[in-house]
Amino acid sequence: MSADGSRFDPLVVVELTSDTKEEAISWLLSRIRDTQQNGGRPIQLEQLGPGVSAQEKENPNLFLVGATRQRLLSGAEDLGLFKEFHDGSMRGFTCANKHNFKDFQDGDSFLSMAECQYIIKHELDTLRARDETHVPGHQQVKLYPGKSIIRRLLSKGILIQVFPLHQKEELKRLSFSWYQKVKLSFQPLDDIRHYYGEGQALYFGFLEYFTFALVPMALIGVPYYLFDWEDYDKYVLLAAFNLVWCTVILELWKRCSASLAYRWGTLSRKKAFEEPRPGFHGVLGFNPVTGREEPLYPNTKRQLRVYLVSLPFVLLCLYLSLYIMMIYFLMEGWVLSVHDEEPTFWTGILCFIPSVIYAVVIEVMNLIYRYAAEFLTEWENHRLESSYQNHLVLKVLVFNFFNCFASLFYIAFVMHDMVMLRQSLATLLITSQILNQFMEAFLPFWLQRRRNKKMIRKVQIRKTLEDKELPLADQVRLEADMSTYLGTFDDYLELFLLFGYVSLFSCVYPLAAVLVVLNNITEVYSDAFKMCRVFKRPFSDPAANIGVWQLAFEAMSVIAVVTNCSLIGMSPQVKAYFPESDMQLILWTVAVEHGLLAFKFILTFLIPDVPKHIQINLSRLEFESLEALKKKVKPGRFNQSEGLEAS
Amino acid sequence: MSADGSRFDPLVVVELTSDTKEEAISWLLSRIRDTQQNGGRPIQLEQLGPGVSAQEKENPNLFLVGATRQRLLSGAEDLGLFKEFHDGSMRGFTCANKHNFKDFQDGDSFLSMAECQYIIKHELDTLRARDETHVPGHQQVKLYPGKSIIRRLLSKGILIQVFPLHQKEELKRLSFSWYQKVKLSFQPLDDIRHYYGEGQALYFGFLEYFTFALVPMALIGVPYYLFDWEDYDKYVLLAAFNLVWCTVILELWKRCSASLAYRWGTLSRKKAFEEPRPGFHGVLGFNPVTGREEPLYPNTKRQLRVYLVSLPFVLLCLYLSLYIMMIYFLMEGWVLSVHDEEPTFWTGILCFIPSVIYAVVIEVMNLIYRYAAEFLTEWENHRLESSYQNHLVLKVLVFNFFNCFASLFYIAFVMHDMVMLRQSLATLLITSQILNQFMEAFLPFWLQRRRNKKMIRKVQIRKTLEDKELPLADQVRLEADMSTYLGTFDDYLELFLLFGYVSLFSCVYPLAAVLVVLNNITEVYSDAFKMCRVFKRPFSDPAANIGVWQLAFEAMSVIAVVTNCSLIGMSPQVKAYFPESDMQLILWTVAVEHGLLAFKFILTFLIPDVPKHIQINLSRLEFESLEALKKKVKPGRFNQSEGLEAS
Repeated sequence: MSADGSRFDPLVVVELTSDTKEEAISWLLSRIRDTQQNGGRPIQLEQLGPGVSAQEKENPNLFLVGATRQRLLSGAEDLGLFKEFHDGSMRGFTCANKHNFKDFQDGDSFLSMAECQYIIKHELDTLRARDETHVPGHQQVKLYPGKSIIRRLLSKGILIQVFPLHQKEELKRLSFSWYQKVKLSFQPLDDIRHYYGEGQALYFGFLEYFTFALVPMALIGVPYYLFDWEDYDKYVLLAAFNLVWCTVILELWKRCSASLAYRWGTLSRKKAFEEPRPGFHGVLGFNPVTGREEPLYPNTKRQLRVYLVSLPFVLLCLYLSLYIMMIYFLMEGWVLSVHDEEPTFWTGILCFIPSVIYAVVIEVMNLIYRYAAEFLTEWENHRLESSYQNHLVLKVLVFNFFNCFASLFYIAFVMHDMVMLRQSLATLLITSQILNQFMEAFLPFWLQRRRNKKMIRKVQIRKTLEDKELPLADQVRLEADMSTYLGTFDDYLELFLLFGYVSLFSCVYPLAAVLVVLNNITEVYSDAFKMCRVFKRPFSDPAANIGVWQLAFEAMSVIAVVTNCSLIGMSPQVKAYFPESDMQLILWTVAVEHGLLAFKFILTFLIPDVPKHIQINLSRLEFESLEALKKKVKPGRFNQSEGLEAS
Repeated sequence: MSADGSRFDPLVVVELTSDTKEEAISWLLSRIRDTQQNGGRPIQLEQLGPGVSAQEKENPNLFLVGATRQRLLSGAEDLGLFKEFHDGSMRGFTCANKHNFKDFQDGDSFLSMAECQYIIKHELDTLRARDETHVPGHQQVKLYPGKSIIRRLLSKGILIQVFPLHQKEELKRLSFSWYQKVKLSFQPLDDIRHYYGEGQALYFGFLEYFTFALVPMALIGVPYYLFDWEDYDKYVLLAAFNLVWCTVILELWKRCSASLAYRWGTLSRKKAFEEPRPGFHGVLGFNPVTGREEPLYPNTKRQLRVYLVSLPFVLLCLYLSLYIMMIYFLMEGWVLSVHDEEPTFWTGILCFIPSVIYAVVIEVMNLIYRYAAEFLTEWENHRLESSYQNHLVLKVLVFNFFNCFASLFYIAFVMHDMVMLRQSLATLLITSQILNQFMEAFLPFWLQRRRNKKMIRKVQIRKTLEDKELPLADQVRLEADMSTYLGTFDDYLELFLLFGYVSLFSCVYPLAAVLVVLNNITEVYSDAFKMCRVFKRPFSDPAANIGVWQLAFEAMSVIAVVTNCSLIGMSPQVKAYFPESDMQLILWTVAVEHGLLAFKFILTFLIPDVPKHIQINLSRLEFESLEALKKKVKPGRFNQSEGLEAS
């Protein structure tokens, strides 16, 4: 099928707009086919033929991208993928050393399809402009040396999308073992990783871990709710258990995540050796660590942007959010007073208006803020994808935290109204769960189903004639129409907010943990379902941990200590113990709180983040690589082409 | 002079008791000379001849230890010493690669004498028993495979001491540039490192840094003292400045220390590759990281010892210390009441008795506790010297913190007596400074001077006859009689407690910083003086940072936030701002304190621990060593002998 006659496995689809100029297409194709300057193993590329429904107007500019096995292996080496070595340890893959890796054999199934797609994506992303000043045929799309071509085409709308293809058979097997089996079992994390990559697998691992970790809290919380235990000593016990438990589960998750990441070979991948993210721009120069040519951008400039523009912007938005909340409470108070004075049907309806306005305003603010945060983080020009993600997550996180919890804080610590707090908490938790489930799984599924039906109906006409399976061209077009999965961001954010509901006010509403556990169980299924059926396959993302989310959850558990201690200190039962002086009460509360915080930090310090056996493996690898460096009599910088020639 | 006729430079002295059996001596000598099983470059050893004053009864069992240049170089490789490479980066030294290191030339002055002595010490320490069951001639001194021979001989009292020799000329030059020059200048840290090693140099670097860092606090504190500014708003400013300043200086010190350690090549030395400390015992096995044969001891057993024995013991001692303090305050109160009732001369004297008893009891407790802590930490059987030191420091530190500050805390937060707090603080600070200076520098110097005079007088008799410089034999005996330097432990502890006086109650006694700065200036000189003139030369210690002390200082600065906020909250001026409710006041204080703590943590997080250019150098080294590992087609474990043969 392809030019050189070898078997062509399509891995990734590139879709250009239908009105792209011919010369632009041929230029892009030749650039992609010629990624390695010194010729050798090019990426394979092929235009997708018309589908069975070709009579309709459809985009002809769909291209399938693949690569030879040899090309993929050397790509794996360039990317520094870690694979299992014959002695069971994880090592950076090298072509020269390939036969020492476990399961290499003939190399056909050595790299998973997700890894191959990731390699292709990396090759496409690092396709940088050389001396072109603009895209041929599109004068308005300027280029300069070092700029990522794919990125520029995407941002200018010439390139619609780049996405990896699903594997029907594997997907069927995965979805069966994941969510279609009725029997209770753990998720097939290794299979998920194999199909979707480490980032996805870590999310589902965390979701599962988090759910199991909450079960003890849920079990302990149930009797409190059922038997209306409101004695303070029992509540103190519950809160103390929750606080210690939160710390312990977060620490243990670090170990758990390190084990998973070690098994998957992402634990030792080094940040500093990562290639710059495609959107990163700057003056072309040489990376001081690797010696490779890439854009450079001064760190001080970036920090000025972060501290002088982004930080003030975020603070301003938080202030605005608080201000709007205050207006809401004022409106609410005013409406209630009107209703109380002279209750009629219309004032009864009026009571709902502030909440509705508030909810709408919050949603609109969230949307605008999200766009602004993405724009600002892009503008900060981070070199690494991980650092971009961290800054983006932090911005969105803080704002969402304020929006979700500010009103609860206000009710708890300014209005001192525990009954209202409990009601608000329950309302927020339950409505957000229902809304989330609906928005996340059902709605996209329903939309997708409608789209698919249309497509399949069209296909059906010819299928009945030729009695064949859905042909590749139609399958690709079907997938191209599927919604795009936007990453684990929103899923983590949801978990984070749920964790907040459970931990921040756990001693006021013990049932929260139960609700969150129930939600998480359905969440596993709906997330798995939407991954397999609703969305395009996402590119895999070789993550070593859940990144900034770990920090976010830990910060939440620190805040939870403060809120829970204050809530207990404010409870009338505790106040009854200090009848003569409020001061004594507060001092005791503060002392206990400080003790708990200190205990938390000591615990964090005492539990090692990486299990012992993995630590040993990692330092053995490091020791061996230092020994290897010693052996090199004349150390020189290895450049990329040298590495490739050796293979 | 030595057996093979090559030039013999004595580096280290080994002193055995005079009643050691002949066969034990010859066994030990042959074992030392034959450290490398496959022959090759042995360590050189020579018995010290009688001194000029040989007529008196003196110990004949003094041995000088040296080694050939070749032996030292391969020792440097085994130890993984980092030296400057020709491209300016720091790399682990290897014999095969030696000519690529800067300043190698003929290799004579490549290793400093301190490094050579460290290598010899390491060789002696790792001299392990093979199949001997006891030391020949000393049936009672049992040995078992893998046990460090030198350690066993030391603990059984057969070996009196092992110490490195001074270099008269270099010492003279160092002491001149260090403390004898009158002109104000920085300490010659590189020279100190060259002569005493990294641990010492980092201590003096920290002392200097700490002194300079306190100068702003001292300058700001002076007007408060002089003009009796006691307005709360001014005090709040002072305290706020102090809190932020403490955080900033501690963070910047990390960067400073990383720069020094990088320059000295200790930053990248890996803990996991360190040899086990000499006192470490266990079943002989293979290290899972390096593959070398060494004793192994299960981690769980050690942790059981730490948590089930050491921790309860420390807590018990702390409780005891608090208990004794309470008794002291009771006695003090009782005595004062007796004195107030009927003041006579005798009751006046009686007033001093509780303080005297308390001071004596505290000193005795400190001594006993110190021995117990050393015993316990030894018994915990830590594999690495650094981990042993950390556990020991932590134990002693916590106890000393309680002893020094518990009474101040009691006065401040239970008795609420600010005048008494200020008085106690001043008294404690000034007396401890005077005592320290006296005990640390003057007393040992005076004792040493008396000893030296006796020795020199003896020598003088013959010197006048032969008109020669002090011969080697007498010089060695003179040094053998000098006091042993016990490490930087007590010096750091003193700095730590001084830091406590400055930071914990800084808003009550602003002059503290001034006193500490003055103390530190004299401390530099007295410490330098005692290092050069009073003590035996210590073995160098390749430290990368100040270790657990960094943590200790940071913990102190966190505690300082709490104490300062409480002190300000308790001040009558602040109380006047909240006339109607104490509760409001406390809540505000707590809120401000939490804000400051959060700010501290964010600051710690934002300031990178290692300067950018060093980070780049480190990751380049790591990148290159990973690349080198990739090149190795058949990676195998390199054992030690292979490494030696290659040289």
